[in-house]
Amino acid sequence: MGKEEVMLLDFWPSMFGMRCRLALTLKGVEYEYREEDLRNKSPLLLQMNPIHKKIPVLVHKGRPVCESLIILHYIDECWPDTYPLLPSDPYERSQSRFWADFVDKKFYETGRKVWSTKGEEQENAKRAFVENIKLLEVQLGDKPFFGGERIGFLDVAVVPFSTWFYTYETLGNFSIQGECPKFMAWVKRCLEIESVSKTLVDPDKVYAFVLQMKKNLGLE
Amino acid sequence: MGKEEVMLLDFWPSMFGMRCRLALTLKGVEYEYREEDLRNKSPLLLQMNPIHKKIPVLVHKGRPVCESLIILHYIDECWPDTYPLLPSDPYERSQSRFWADFVDKKFYETGRKVWSTKGEEQENAKRAFVENIKLLEVQLGDKPFFGGERIGFLDVAVVPFSTWFYTYETLGNFSIQGECPKFMAWVKRCLEIESVSKTLVDPDKVYAFVLQMKKNLGLE
Repeated sequence: MGKEEVMLLDFWPSMFGMRCRLALTLKGVEYEYREEDLRNKSPLLLQMNPIHKKIPVLVHKGRPVCESLIILHYIDECWPDTYPLLPSDPYERSQSRFWADFVDKKFYETGRKVWSTKGEEQENAKRAFVENIKLLEVQLGDKPFFGGERIGFLDVAVVPFSTWFYTYETLGNFSIQGECPKFMAWVKRCLEIESVSKTLVDPDKVYAFVLQMKKNLGLE
Repeated sequence: MGKEEVMLLDFWPSMFGMRCRLALTLKGVEYEYREEDLRNKSPLLLQMNPIHKKIPVLVHKGRPVCESLIILHYIDECWPDTYPLLPSDPYERSQSRFWADFVDKKFYETGRKVWSTKGEEQENAKRAFVENIKLLEVQLGDKPFFGGERIGFLDVAVVPFSTWFYTYETLGNFSIQGECPKFMAWVKRCLEIESVSKTLVDPDKVYAFVLQMKKNLGLE
């Protein structure tokens, strides 16, 4: 274990887990990564997150922190001196939190419907997905990053979803690039940052994982 | 408008609105209260919360903050010198956030099922409601308040739900007092605080409101 005794219980394709990995990487915090088998959860996961039984869980000096946005807050407050994630202005902080919460409420479930449903339900999900991204494009405005000149809390909360875009586009037969070029230019800028590119997983591997999951769920 | 130009768009029986009213009261922040008709939302509400179109919205110097827990963070960060809501320790902060998020995810929907369903669905909701409160009782432990010796972030997030307990108990035909005496003793302690007692609405009025709502929804 790293000198700070930080452990992350996680599952590699998880956008929520990637948020935590990226935040720890940006902060330069060493941590032990523990891959979970979500079909056979470890006793440690069930002990550390008995309420939701979900990854990611950050275990710091033996104490668990659950829920990815709460983990991001914890990381930012526990290691405040390197790479602050949240802006310092209270209003800007509220807006970062609002849009990260928006992503939690809207992106995951809509994305899941894009790859797991068909017909009208899928078309509605695709339309909603693009509309949600366009709302984020408005927030981005002319800034290079949501955090301004460098990536911050909201960038960290959003960019892991981009590893699933190839899956959404391929299984949903639509182009996020075509519909939301400004957002995709932001993804590209993020990926030029080493901490981001080395933390985010390979979209091709996510695609292979989702194909296998569809098979397991009998959704082919 | 108060000298800080603070306005709250709200609806009187809302637990989420009451959180904001209580936080502003504890902080001693003057604000203008604007009651919304949720069946005929004001142009101001739609303008200030175009994404979710929900109350409560805190409007400070013309700028909106939405989502009650995000509003509580904003209030705590904007007026940090009077009555801090979140604890200062990063781990304790994470736990306050975790349990407030738990309440958001579990209490409202389960409570709604207690008063709006029947038979097995209602029985399951009653059982879940009590189980969730018992989990909070464990968190409370032997402290007088979740915040320790005085009410804090989590107390403010939870105590507004108590105004709906008479409704849940009467329409669900069960006793939260009987099942969760320790939690109810906490509610009683909270109500001995003037800021709490003068902010929380009358449970009888909530009950009358819910009876009317059931009628409107054809649920009698």
